[in-house]
Amino acid sequence: MSKYSIDKLKNMNITELYEVSDNIRKDIIEVVSKNGGHLSSNLGIVELTVALHKVFDSPKDKIIFDVSHQTYAHKLITGRSLDNLRVLGGVSGFSKMSESEHDSFEAGHSSTSISAAIGFLEAKKTNNEIGHVISIIGDASITNGLSFEALNYLGAQKNQKAIIILNDNQMGVSKSVGSLALSFNKIRAKGSLKFLRKITPKGIKKMLKSFAYRQNIFEYLGFRYFEGIDGHNIKELIKYLSFAKESNKSVVLHIKTIKGKGYKFAEEDSSGYWHSVDPFNIDTGICKNENSFKSFGNTIANHLGKKIEEGLNNIRVITPAMTLGSGLKDFSVNYKDNFIDVGIAEENAVTMSSSMAIAGLRPFVFVYSTFLQRAYDEILHDVARPNLPVVFCIDRAGIIDGDGDTHQGIFDVSFLSTMPNVEILAPKNILDAKKAVDYALMKSNPVAIRYAKKDENVNLFSESNFSKWDLIKDGDVLIISYGNLLSTIYETIKNTNVALCNAHNLSIIDKDLLLKYKKVIVIEEVIDALSLSNKIINYVYKEKIDIKVSSYNIGMNYLETGSKEDLLNKYIGDIANIIRKEAKC
Amino acid sequence: MSKYSIDKLKNMNITELYEVSDNIRKDIIEVVSKNGGHLSSNLGIVELTVALHKVFDSPKDKIIFDVSHQTYAHKLITGRSLDNLRVLGGVSGFSKMSESEHDSFEAGHSSTSISAAIGFLEAKKTNNEIGHVISIIGDASITNGLSFEALNYLGAQKNQKAIIILNDNQMGVSKSVGSLALSFNKIRAKGSLKFLRKITPKGIKKMLKSFAYRQNIFEYLGFRYFEGIDGHNIKELIKYLSFAKESNKSVVLHIKTIKGKGYKFAEEDSSGYWHSVDPFNIDTGICKNENSFKSFGNTIANHLGKKIEEGLNNIRVITPAMTLGSGLKDFSVNYKDNFIDVGIAEENAVTMSSSMAIAGLRPFVFVYSTFLQRAYDEILHDVARPNLPVVFCIDRAGIIDGDGDTHQGIFDVSFLSTMPNVEILAPKNILDAKKAVDYALMKSNPVAIRYAKKDENVNLFSESNFSKWDLIKDGDVLIISYGNLLSTIYETIKNTNVALCNAHNLSIIDKDLLLKYKKVIVIEEVIDALSLSNKIINYVYKEKIDIKVSSYNIGMNYLETGSKEDLLNKYIGDIANIIRKEAKC
Repeated sequence: MSKYSIDKLKNMNITELYEVSDNIRKDIIEVVSKNGGHLSSNLGIVELTVALHKVFDSPKDKIIFDVSHQTYAHKLITGRSLDNLRVLGGVSGFSKMSESEHDSFEAGHSSTSISAAIGFLEAKKTNNEIGHVISIIGDASITNGLSFEALNYLGAQKNQKAIIILNDNQMGVSKSVGSLALSFNKIRAKGSLKFLRKITPKGIKKMLKSFAYRQNIFEYLGFRYFEGIDGHNIKELIKYLSFAKESNKSVVLHIKTIKGKGYKFAEEDSSGYWHSVDPFNIDTGICKNENSFKSFGNTIANHLGKKIEEGLNNIRVITPAMTLGSGLKDFSVNYKDNFIDVGIAEENAVTMSSSMAIAGLRPFVFVYSTFLQRAYDEILHDVARPNLPVVFCIDRAGIIDGDGDTHQGIFDVSFLSTMPNVEILAPKNILDAKKAVDYALMKSNPVAIRYAKKDENVNLFSESNFSKWDLIKDGDVLIISYGNLLSTIYETIKNTNVALCNAHNLSIIDKDLLLKYKKVIVIEEVIDALSLSNKIINYVYKEKIDIKVSSYNIGMNYLETGSKEDLLNKYIGDIANIIRKEAKC
Repeated sequence: MSKYSIDKLKNMNITELYEVSDNIRKDIIEVVSKNGGHLSSNLGIVELTVALHKVFDSPKDKIIFDVSHQTYAHKLITGRSLDNLRVLGGVSGFSKMSESEHDSFEAGHSSTSISAAIGFLEAKKTNNEIGHVISIIGDASITNGLSFEALNYLGAQKNQKAIIILNDNQMGVSKSVGSLALSFNKIRAKGSLKFLRKITPKGIKKMLKSFAYRQNIFEYLGFRYFEGIDGHNIKELIKYLSFAKESNKSVVLHIKTIKGKGYKFAEEDSSGYWHSVDPFNIDTGICKNENSFKSFGNTIANHLGKKIEEGLNNIRVITPAMTLGSGLKDFSVNYKDNFIDVGIAEENAVTMSSSMAIAGLRPFVFVYSTFLQRAYDEILHDVARPNLPVVFCIDRAGIIDGDGDTHQGIFDVSFLSTMPNVEILAPKNILDAKKAVDYALMKSNPVAIRYAKKDENVNLFSESNFSKWDLIKDGDVLIISYGNLLSTIYETIKNTNVALCNAHNLSIIDKDLLLKYKKVIVIEEVIDALSLSNKIINYVYKEKIDIKVSSYNIGMNYLETGSKEDLLNKYIGDIANIIRKEAKC
């Protein structure tokens, strides 16, 4: 029997709703301290989630959480336990339709919630099982192009009503960027419109008529707009949500929340550290796995900093809201003039890099593998087609720990391989990452450098010439891999007759090397389509090279939530077993 | 010696500039009537282009044309002849950096010009060879998400100045959509601010201070904004452009132009017919190749109309501004409640289809192959991941006539093949297209139906069971193809011993069929990566099927401008020669 339920909540008074919010908050802090996960955003939205379920009737009313990493309170209220949060077979850290009928939509990537609302409203025209449609979207997500396209469409639909809740915590993942964010700041500076809190429910209709709101961007696009709403005041939230429920026009409620609310370390954080965390000690706020590894992104950024100091002042580092996650914090401070955070705007990041390269700059776009997908057309059309020297520094490549199917970095090799001119490198460790940058700087074509969150090959030394593959160890049967799996494989085969090759350039085939073996086993953390094994098989088939190729990869699958290790075992298999079976050693 | 040049133009007075505009207009009408191409947009922008080159100094000043199909006047003024427009080896119908230093950026897809401006402005910080940066963007392109991301970024850059010219012809490709477009209409209704025309140049600074402009969306985002400028009044254009040149803040000039200006058939067109045309008779306006073929899109839309009348009222047709091009004109009139044009917003089109499918609707997204790229992430993350029954009706698949490297439909098979769950169909003719729709309606996964502009296989009859491949003719050696090439191949082999298979489902491999042959030749109008031949080779290699596979496709190339026939011969080869060589018949 679940501690929380929508039914219980419906019968509670304001005092009880605050109590339940406190309990939910405690539960969230506890589970995230154990399992890791998204903290700040979940703590910031507790009262809002409680108020939403008090006012609206899910699942008839469609409550759509943008990105949906902030749904822990929603999961608890809708009867789910978070005990197995982010564990294989457990509860996802994001909305999942298969988990609950109350998860009306799924996300992981940002800025889809308003488009999703449009779809439900379209269905509502002929389906009276759909009630109100509510999107909850953050102040960073709303600046993405997809959100704007949806707002622009929805604002023109005079016969449809959506409720858009702008959850403004002034942070986005780290900090909101752009003129919309600046204008939100102006609103904050004005202070919240406290008088509204005193208005009684029956006065709401009157209030609407007399409320002298400014012509702001949402009004310009056709929405009713209310600002300065306190996202931790349940009574005020219920009042506004009830008004929005009764409105016959689409409404934007601009709600101010405090990210990390109720956990002091997260509240005081302005860097975004507490956005998504590994398990930590609640009292000290210290991460339990803290082993201060240097990230690839940080290493590359430092290396670029050195290059700038050596005179390469045409280097630009561009990131779509991933300053902290991509290891760019120091760079952003030390090389301010060479650094651009465009906010959650992957497409703009890539297309502006195109003209930068045309004008003689050397742009490096730092982005997570999964988010780079948003800029597929911009890479293909604006960078690869005119064959420009833009470098993509792709973090979180490969299987992703805990975040599930929306965040896997298993597609980048495939989609980048559909683009002529793009060269894909996978440096095995942070030392090689610097060499990859040097290599990219000498090239005039687009180069993608992909790497995992953590360097697992710190102690694996071998050559780092990206023009050919690197034979780490010779033997009878050849294993080909790249990236993080190399060390594990090396440990398994170091005392055997098995050879290991680091195929750190995924855009070439090292024919000379292949010719020396009768059998190769390709192991990689990507989908099968246009995987390296796919390319090798096509190559040896066309070149009539007599060699047996075995492929181990993810196949054509999205991966559910789970630890990296569990997912690796489930989808690729146990490395030692694979090698024992294939190489008979 | 070119008839036009920037130097000549710089020395002309207003009367002479009007004369030159008239001559350019005549030249454009003449060349498009012979070679085909974009007409309306080019006729609408003649005076603006003349004024731009009068006021600004290209190539130091960067003049960036969004989409760049409206650059014919610019090409003439910068010394290029249009005689070989859209011909292999000739002048492209779009901006091409390789053609002229005056083409500062390249495009073909919409809404990249403001991001491009940002890149040049970034480079300008340390490069004094870059002068003013000007983006010319249409009223439809500016509503795309990428444009908004760039406006949001640029509006917050207080130390950088861009000049954005909103070329508002009220049309987009056909008609602008969304609340921004509605607000533009309000401006139009207000009439142009005629008094501004009387202001003398020296009064400009004063004007700026006193001009009581409304707080509109551009101002909200941080731009100076001027509306109601007559795009065919060269004196007024020069005045405003000169002001923008002197401004120290980013400026948006909202200029009203008449699409098709100066050619009556194009001026009177409200459907978008004269946007991009085949060769035509200037006097009658009748298309020379007019052979009233039924398009795939039109056929599918009619078929969907019938389904709706049979009771399938949950069908929705969604298109991003491609109503006419995708053959949806009749449908949009006859089934208004089932039809949605979202404007140039491919991403929104796809994500709204996701929630429509969740809510029980059957969405069909009609889009050109090349433009679908813009929604790669939305298909992968919002449709394919949750495995929803959204159908993509992909027009202009394969090699594209005349439009060059930005418009080729040669990537869709590849990028859709990187997505689990997506099934790709290529009906051979319009009869089969209807069967493909029936097949898709029975499936619960995403289905992509791809086809060329024109049905070349009207008279090719054979089975249309999409669960397997279709053997059109038996023989010793097997040719596998799909789509438009089938008829050409059939004509070549009909009296020989060569077999022909229609692989109209690109997501399966018909093993039973392959097992019957010792040699197959795969011929297809797509890039090599994840082509059907790539998939067949991987399959037969893994399944140890003893068969020789020869591949004929585009390789890893972007294709330059040229006729479909010329490009086919250059990149794939002469079909008869290929077959003679491979099949020895």
